Amino acid sequence: MALIVQKYGGTSMGSPERIKNVARRVAKFRAQGHQVVVVVSAMSGETNRLVALARELSKAPDPRELDVVVSTGEQVSIGLLVLALQDIGVAAKSYTGGQVKILTDNAFGKARILGIDEAAIRRDLAEDKVVVVAGFQGVDADGNITTLGRGGSDTTGVALAAALKADECQIYTDVDGVYTTDPRIVPEARRLDVITFEEMLEMASLGSKVLQIRSVEFAGKYKVKLRVLSSFEEESQGTLITVEENRNMEQPVISGIAFNRDEAKITVLGVPDQPGIACQILGPVAEANIDVDMIIQNAGRDGTADFSFTVSRNDLDKTVNVLDRVKAVIGAKAIEADKNLCKVSVVGVGMHSHPGVAARMFRALSEEGINIRMISTSEIKISVAIDEKYLELAVRVLHKAFDLDRPAL
Amino acid sequence: MALIVQKYGGTSMGSPERIKNVARRVAKFRAQGHQVVVVVSAMSGETNRLVALARELSKAPDPRELDVVVSTGEQVSIGLLVLALQDIGVAAKSYTGGQVKILTDNAFGKARILGIDEAAIRRDLAEDKVVVVAGFQGVDADGNITTLGRGGSDTTGVALAAALKADECQIYTDVDGVYTTDPRIVPEARRLDVITFEEMLEMASLGSKVLQIRSVEFAGKYKVKLRVLSSFEEESQGTLITVEENRNMEQPVISGIAFNRDEAKITVLGVPDQPGIACQILGPVAEANIDVDMIIQNAGRDGTADFSFTVSRNDLDKTVNVLDRVKAVIGAKAIEADKNLCKVSVVGVGMHSHPGVAARMFRALSEEGINIRMISTSEIKISVAIDEKYLELAVRVLHKAFDLDRPAL
Repeated sequence: MALIVQKYGGTSMGSPERIKNVARRVAKFRAQGHQVVVVVSAMSGETNRLVALARELSKAPDPRELDVVVSTGEQVSIGLLVLALQDIGVAAKSYTGGQVKILTDNAFGKARILGIDEAAIRRDLAEDKVVVVAGFQGVDADGNITTLGRGGSDTTGVALAAALKADECQIYTDVDGVYTTDPRIVPEARRLDVITFEEMLEMASLGSKVLQIRSVEFAGKYKVKLRVLSSFEEESQGTLITVEENRNMEQPVISGIAFNRDEAKITVLGVPDQPGIACQILGPVAEANIDVDMIIQNAGRDGTADFSFTVSRNDLDKTVNVLDRVKAVIGAKAIEADKNLCKVSVVGVGMHSHPGVAARMFRALSEEGINIRMISTSEIKISVAIDEKYLELAVRVLHKAFDLDRPAL
Repeated sequence: MALIVQKYGGTSMGSPERIKNVARRVAKFRAQGHQVVVVVSAMSGETNRLVALARELSKAPDPRELDVVVSTGEQVSIGLLVLALQDIGVAAKSYTGGQVKILTDNAFGKARILGIDEAAIRRDLAEDKVVVVAGFQGVDADGNITTLGRGGSDTTGVALAAALKADECQIYTDVDGVYTTDPRIVPEARRLDVITFEEMLEMASLGSKVLQIRSVEFAGKYKVKLRVLSSFEEESQGTLITVEENRNMEQPVISGIAFNRDEAKITVLGVPDQPGIACQILGPVAEANIDVDMIIQNAGRDGTADFSFTVSRNDLDKTVNVLDRVKAVIGAKAIEADKNLCKVSVVGVGMHSHPGVAARMFRALSEEGINIRMISTSEIKISVAIDEKYLELAVRVLHKAFDLDRPAL
């Protein structure tokens, strides 16, 4: 018998019929003798509907009151799922975040969990009940309702699993796990049975959006075994996200190919090649709330340097405006912008003990005539910026070059 | 400066535009220097939508979980109204029933208020905030969410006014007060400036459905000054519901003409004229959960009696079935049913010191050839059952006979 925390997202809870499906799945785990705590999101579309209502009454809604309104979406879901469970003979009880209670700070709309009182849940589990908890919400020390921000239900699930020392936290979504890359680009892409937290963070932030990053960090910190599963496919075991020591020794070097469209590159030409120049360029950019990703500085022969970095394409115009204003101060000759880039990355914890990964990656791209515009590396990933038109080709080539289409051992 | 509790129903809160209207009205009272606590219902249609969702998942929804789902309607309303108030510069804060807290028993779906902790509300009022409280809901001693039953928001308003010792509890509806009778039948019907709690109870239970009966009882018990007003007409002072001593000495004898369609009369013929027969007949009817209204027993000359009573027309068939089963046991000769009746009542606390009221009523009806089928009386009302086809005529005749179309002194 295991204690399992299951989280179902808005799509899984999208209609009475789907809620009944969730109830049946929960019942199956109960029938196998497991204790189950379920965390649910609002029915799909509901949060958007509530936010839109609030915005009709206030252009800049007070965050405390917005949380009062928005948190009702999950409250409806918990009641409905318990009714569906009871209807098929499964004893169950619902809890709002405040009823649990899930104590948070008072940063309305993006609250952080400070602690969870799991006593009441344990009592219900001991009475053989399924416990259904509202995701995304908590309560501050003064009893105000708070929400954790979009996708916060994943975090609720992981935090509950940590507090209850659950054997596993299962996140049900509309995909059945984490893939070696996007199957829409590479039909041979395989579902990974296991991935480490660190790899998952790289895959998520690079565009494979399956889980809220915060919940993965949280799971890593508290060593919660996290599994991503499809709520629509019964058979798949999904992908287990775990710490490295749980992995197979024969794990392949690379776990997957991540990518991100909509990159733009900015080059500040002919700046004085002297200490502090990076700070002079990126300081104003950061002050304008623009996220910078890859950064390169090339020293030239004439005592000047070219300084390049990438931003999201949406931020390109804003970034150019900021730099045009400081161009004279930093002594730059010109600002160049290139908006048709993308980023492709190979990710794998195995690579730090396999020095040949970068070489293999660059050779594969060069054989297809794909020019690398920028390179950046970390312990577990190598990213290149390339022309966007080569994105699909590069992903396919790299997927093959690292044998990702072959089943793992 | 007065402390006013205002309650706005679902129609008043029916759309963002209407919520803005409510906010403007509240702001007007604030601008006059009053402290305002607002109680709101769910947006019209919302409670029905939520109940329908719950019924899709369970034919007999668990009352605890149904309350979790249904109580979200008022929670959305409080947040939206506070946003609307803040948007026009009025400091405001929302409270769910649990946050107040409004302590109830655990009779989910029809909970009774046991106590109200008004400390937090007083603190906010002292800080010049408008306090917006969710109607219809509370929390039991174990922290479970409860609801007070349909129309319970009126009760929340009155209970808060009692707890806060408010100067007045204003109930905003889609009518601008209590009328001498239904203006759709008698165009000359006048709005009453004042009515006593007792009269209001008779008027409400007899069909002039303006306020939830329970909230009127509550207001009478705790001597809360209750005022019914229209949320759409700014000018009207509505009707004040108060204890008798607050009334004008020259108050007319009769306050209004109430009526109820859809009455049905059942006569049990030829039962033995002996003690206990009423109980033998009405016991099985009560067990079948059928409400009985007027009751008459006529002794005949042959040692038998005819026993008549009225029920709601919807319950007629059910009642006849019940009596057919026990007919032999009680020794009745026959069961007769008459489904085309209505009830018309004159109501007024003044009548107990004016013995001529009944005579004036019966004369007025007889002059129009309206046959009285049953009569029942109380301290402050006289009701007659008549053929339904005479309902409008009887109401008009009585309204005129008691000079209700003339302005009060």
